[in-house]
Amino acid sequence: MEKTVRRIPFETMRAEFLRILLSQGFSREHAELCANSFAENSLEGVYSHGLNRFLPFIKRVREGGIDIHAEPVRVASFGVLEQWDARRAAGPVAATLSMRRAIHLAHEQGAGIIGLKNTNHWMRAGTYGKVAAQAGCIGICFTNTIPIIPPWGSGERRVGNNPIVFAVPHKDGPILLDMSLAQFSNGKLHFYGREHKPLPEYGGYDAAGNLTRDPGEIKKSKRPLPIGLWKGTGLAFMLDLIAVCLSGGRSTADLSKEMEDDRVSQVFMAMDPARFWGKEEMDARIDLMTTHLLSASPLPETDASVSSSRGVRYPGQGMRQTREENLRLGIPVDDEYWDEVCRLRVDGGELNGLSG
Amino acid sequence: MEKTVRRIPFETMRAEFLRILLSQGFSREHAELCANSFAENSLEGVYSHGLNRFLPFIKRVREGGIDIHAEPVRVASFGVLEQWDARRAAGPVAATLSMRRAIHLAHEQGAGIIGLKNTNHWMRAGTYGKVAAQAGCIGICFTNTIPIIPPWGSGERRVGNNPIVFAVPHKDGPILLDMSLAQFSNGKLHFYGREHKPLPEYGGYDAAGNLTRDPGEIKKSKRPLPIGLWKGTGLAFMLDLIAVCLSGGRSTADLSKEMEDDRVSQVFMAMDPARFWGKEEMDARIDLMTTHLLSASPLPETDASVSSSRGVRYPGQGMRQTREENLRLGIPVDDEYWDEVCRLRVDGGELNGLSG
Repeated sequence: MEKTVRRIPFETMRAEFLRILLSQGFSREHAELCANSFAENSLEGVYSHGLNRFLPFIKRVREGGIDIHAEPVRVASFGVLEQWDARRAAGPVAATLSMRRAIHLAHEQGAGIIGLKNTNHWMRAGTYGKVAAQAGCIGICFTNTIPIIPPWGSGERRVGNNPIVFAVPHKDGPILLDMSLAQFSNGKLHFYGREHKPLPEYGGYDAAGNLTRDPGEIKKSKRPLPIGLWKGTGLAFMLDLIAVCLSGGRSTADLSKEMEDDRVSQVFMAMDPARFWGKEEMDARIDLMTTHLLSASPLPETDASVSSSRGVRYPGQGMRQTREENLRLGIPVDDEYWDEVCRLRVDGGELNGLSG
Repeated sequence: MEKTVRRIPFETMRAEFLRILLSQGFSREHAELCANSFAENSLEGVYSHGLNRFLPFIKRVREGGIDIHAEPVRVASFGVLEQWDARRAAGPVAATLSMRRAIHLAHEQGAGIIGLKNTNHWMRAGTYGKVAAQAGCIGICFTNTIPIIPPWGSGERRVGNNPIVFAVPHKDGPILLDMSLAQFSNGKLHFYGREHKPLPEYGGYDAAGNLTRDPGEIKKSKRPLPIGLWKGTGLAFMLDLIAVCLSGGRSTADLSKEMEDDRVSQVFMAMDPARFWGKEEMDARIDLMTTHLLSASPLPETDASVSSSRGVRYPGQGMRQTREENLRLGIPVDDEYWDEVCRLRVDGGELNGLSG
């Protein structure tokens, strides 16, 4: 018998998150930012940073790793370049406010660039690219993380899986690339490991240094495959370096002491092309480019590389389809996670029902 | 008997390039920009875009693909965001002037971002990151190119090998990542093909869609390996898109008609962190980060992945070593290329000695 997938309306999920965040003492503004962010991530198919990550986030709040009362403050500025201190505010709050500030500068002066320090895990990187694109701006943002990839030539982890995001506004929704620097996320490795399936492509090295698709071997060796080998670990180092130089915050080297994505450094860039293009004119130009890309014929079924491909798509196209489907049918949830969220109740100041 | 490598002093090479460029009618300013750029590329070991590319560049000038009299002009601006038209000026000239303009804006307003259209091949991407770093700025730049990589899921070429550069200033020379989006450049494929050697890592697919290290198979299939598979082709598309949206210029789709890197679109960003850091303080901070990276132990010789590694290095470290060596000993040259450059003479307005 096939298991039916339970689906929850977006608004129901958002309201539950909001209820819990408010009960934790978040201000209404911060609670709404976080609730929207987590619910939107699930809505667009990034379940690992939506519902499935919400309870660990609440635990982190209760452990004191996140300061729910903190407001990010500007500590330095030079024209369109600003340095902000998140003071350990919730990652999604500080990141959204930072991209909004970059957008404000871009609307006034063409571009805005924010270096943000002492912030926490921002959950899904793509969220903040979307914030820029929805305001009509081109957005670029990146974060550093704890060291989880060995630099090329070593087996010892020294660089982060630092995601980088590029977003371009379009009438049908952002064109959006949200890319971390390991070929597969830890979440994907766990997923394939649990299902006892090989990865669809090489995902790392085994202990002897051979490329492997076995998630168990990669977990043992701690050598996930960086995109482009030496290129990916070089890029990871540069993003870390630029985040530190612009924010004045902590580096991946600093994060290696506690191995927690806590008090990390991030960069948010917004550029406003509105003085160069009418909106319709720019949309039409973008449509020509996506049409050209999508005109590439799919590989024949006989091609050996075809297995992990779902056809030619532009960045963000799959997300857009998932969003439409989940808005129409509801967001598919893992019963266990969803029931635990619904059970959470505050009694006499204590949060009851939080497992683990 | 081992062949001795002929080495030419940097200043001699630069002077020869300058002589030829002036004889072609370039202004002194443009000729010096180009001569420096080609000679520096060879000095730092990027021979494919230095001496070895100089004569094809001169041929392109004589065919009229490059307008030696063109001066780039600003066509639109909004605060720190500017749109420039290179009007088919030489790529190294237009790119250097664009990054200088971005630096000027950054020195005045924290950051500057230039979209440049109708420019030609800029030779080595890293050159312009260095221009930013040498002026104390963080630099990011990228270009689009003709389509030479199939998007993920197809065997038909639709995205460029669009290089992207990240540069950070440091007292010992820039920390510099200059990265194209195929695992190996066409130059590298030709080199290994000529030597009848397999690539040190997978470099593309054969006609049946199997990963291969055989440069001949990749040449046949026209399917070079993008870094990170779907990630690399997604990134290529985003860089093309952003270059078009900021410059108003031609896209990879437009370039596919003639399949020439001619009238391409580029982006130059400079950010000035000088108000946030003393120079020594920032250098010291960067040193902590490179030290942490380089503390990763090299792989043992028995590791299967060790063959193509030359030890752990930060981006730009190898280039810095090559530069020092070539300054001290002279730049190693291919006799054939160097002799042809030295033989070029202008007689009665005609350039004699240009083969092919």
